[in-house]
Amino acid sequence: MTDSFQLLQGGANGPRRGRVSTRHGEIETPIFMPVGTQATVKAMTPAQLDDVGAQIILGNTYHLNLRPGSELVAQLGGLHKFMAWPKPILTDSGGFQVFSLAKLRKITDKGIAFQSHIDGQKIFLGPRECFDIQRNLGTDIAMVLDECPPFPCDEKDCRAAVDRTIRWAREFKDIAAGEGWLDAGHHAFGIVQGSIYEDQRKECAQALVEIGFPGYAVGGVSVGEPEPEMLRQVAASLPELPADKPRYIMGVGTPPQLLKMIALGADMFDCVMPTRLARHANVFTPNGTINLRNERFKYDPAPIVEGLDNYTCQHYSRAYLRHLVMANELLAHTLLSLHNVHFFLDLMAQARAHIEANDFESWSHQWIETYDLGLND
Amino acid sequence: MTDSFQLLQGGANGPRRGRVSTRHGEIETPIFMPVGTQATVKAMTPAQLDDVGAQIILGNTYHLNLRPGSELVAQLGGLHKFMAWPKPILTDSGGFQVFSLAKLRKITDKGIAFQSHIDGQKIFLGPRECFDIQRNLGTDIAMVLDECPPFPCDEKDCRAAVDRTIRWAREFKDIAAGEGWLDAGHHAFGIVQGSIYEDQRKECAQALVEIGFPGYAVGGVSVGEPEPEMLRQVAASLPELPADKPRYIMGVGTPPQLLKMIALGADMFDCVMPTRLARHANVFTPNGTINLRNERFKYDPAPIVEGLDNYTCQHYSRAYLRHLVMANELLAHTLLSLHNVHFFLDLMAQARAHIEANDFESWSHQWIETYDLGLND
Repeated sequence: MTDSFQLLQGGANGPRRGRVSTRHGEIETPIFMPVGTQATVKAMTPAQLDDVGAQIILGNTYHLNLRPGSELVAQLGGLHKFMAWPKPILTDSGGFQVFSLAKLRKITDKGIAFQSHIDGQKIFLGPRECFDIQRNLGTDIAMVLDECPPFPCDEKDCRAAVDRTIRWAREFKDIAAGEGWLDAGHHAFGIVQGSIYEDQRKECAQALVEIGFPGYAVGGVSVGEPEPEMLRQVAASLPELPADKPRYIMGVGTPPQLLKMIALGADMFDCVMPTRLARHANVFTPNGTINLRNERFKYDPAPIVEGLDNYTCQHYSRAYLRHLVMANELLAHTLLSLHNVHFFLDLMAQARAHIEANDFESWSHQWIETYDLGLND
Repeated sequence: MTDSFQLLQGGANGPRRGRVSTRHGEIETPIFMPVGTQATVKAMTPAQLDDVGAQIILGNTYHLNLRPGSELVAQLGGLHKFMAWPKPILTDSGGFQVFSLAKLRKITDKGIAFQSHIDGQKIFLGPRECFDIQRNLGTDIAMVLDECPPFPCDEKDCRAAVDRTIRWAREFKDIAAGEGWLDAGHHAFGIVQGSIYEDQRKECAQALVEIGFPGYAVGGVSVGEPEPEMLRQVAASLPELPADKPRYIMGVGTPPQLLKMIALGADMFDCVMPTRLARHANVFTPNGTINLRNERFKYDPAPIVEGLDNYTCQHYSRAYLRHLVMANELLAHTLLSLHNVHFFLDLMAQARAHIEANDFESWSHQWIETYDLGLND
């Protein structure tokens, strides 16, 4: 297994600067990973992703396995070549989508049998299948198969999910290591589950660390629980993980949530929020989000964010962007997604700079206060 | 009035090389103009348009007047700034859309009263209003208000439409000249109407030439008539127009039609075909169009057109593009539009080169034969 994380600054707790090495290059942490569910970050070209500073993107194992199929992607040279994204890719395990999208789910200790939400096809996903799919995709960072309990979930059901998560993590690791896949420089991250039960979170983390992974994730957060609960679970999980491995918080979050989790020692994030909100005309500013459908932007000559260095803010008024939205123009999705994704990536770049400058805490408190006040003109 | 067309090669008939000078730069003819109906070429950024070699784009007066309104565009600095397109823009008169889209139309010699197809608002469009809207937009090349007869149209009704077209052209020219707008380097093109009646086409052209414009268009073609009829009307109109002014054939056409019209002495074209077909997964190749929904492209590693120098063909397999289409991904619209627009622009670049090399006729015959055979693998 390659030791491929450098902790440049910080330790087991508190904000950290790091660098993850992958087969497709390095990523600087803390980092936000735009989500490319179906082998595309919605409405953006890889060139545009590169322009806004994306270092790594996410692909969804569940979706890609159903359509176009991982064998097809492998036959066409892997996901990087297929979607023309030459930088690192992380793929999730597919487990989360099986629980949120698939029909007629049946879980055993061997894995999950379910039906495709697209065509009803019967599919089985165990650690072996989960590994094979991600190997076919040629991912840089694979996620082990896990069972993500719903919220709320009683303690006993959660315990069963945690047990299976640990069992599957071990099986996944054995398969990946046995095939020399980890030694070839691919990563596999274990996933800490445990719902809102801090003791189960800690036990899960400890068991995963015992198995040993090149990185760890905290899953099963942002599934409906209140924010303080989410932060408590992240805070319970991270100290159990080794300082010298990257920590990825799955599927979060708002800009303030990202900063709060960086403060707890998190390194990596992914979320559909920037692209999904963009498609509903919601865009991010340092003073909170605004909806461009609002009449008050009809004649507004200002960019979404003054001085922000992305194509949308450098070229377009809120008035023009509102026009595109009101006229149902496809270009709205591209320009607003581009801005939102850049906003998240730029926030991470600022966070890294402030960690390096040793003033992350004061800066992030101020940033969050301004954002939460929401004083947009 | 600025003399702003250089005829570089050719004469009144046959293929010609020319150069139109505008307030926002020069365009090399023959040229295809991508259509940006609502202040956007659908699904493409101006940077992408620039990348594929677009020299000039079209804006639609009818649409922009309804939404967002030409005063709003003027207040935000004009159409170039509004949509961040720094190169030349041609705007149509709005007449064609009034006839094809608007409700409760009433035509008099003064202009056209109609209701917006969006919200039913009552609007009047005469030569004065048509000029004011295009002046507000800050267009480089304005089209005079015309009446486009439907197909089929009887000879008497066509005569009335031609008479009004000439009357409105004169009024438009007087207004534009009177306000010093033409002397400031803007263009206004007269439009030859006359449906399928060659004598009316000729008379209309002669009357417009007598009024005198910096350029001329042939309108009312590709409105449902068979192709030979369309070509006959273009062939009847062009010889009546001065050799030293640009000729624009409005709203056409297929790649072979463009080449056939270049052979007749046409210089400029616009059509929604490349972007509209792209949104239905139809893409252009030298062997005709293909529909990427077709199962036979599922594993096809080839680009749409081998060796074509655009972002889509340089980066993507037909298999990937088909996947995007089948998964209803927005990026499909961008990548396929980009390819199709480039295909048209590249065809015009080839045409210009072959005119310069004095082998346009043999080349275009061969090109059309290959295209019409449609022998796609």
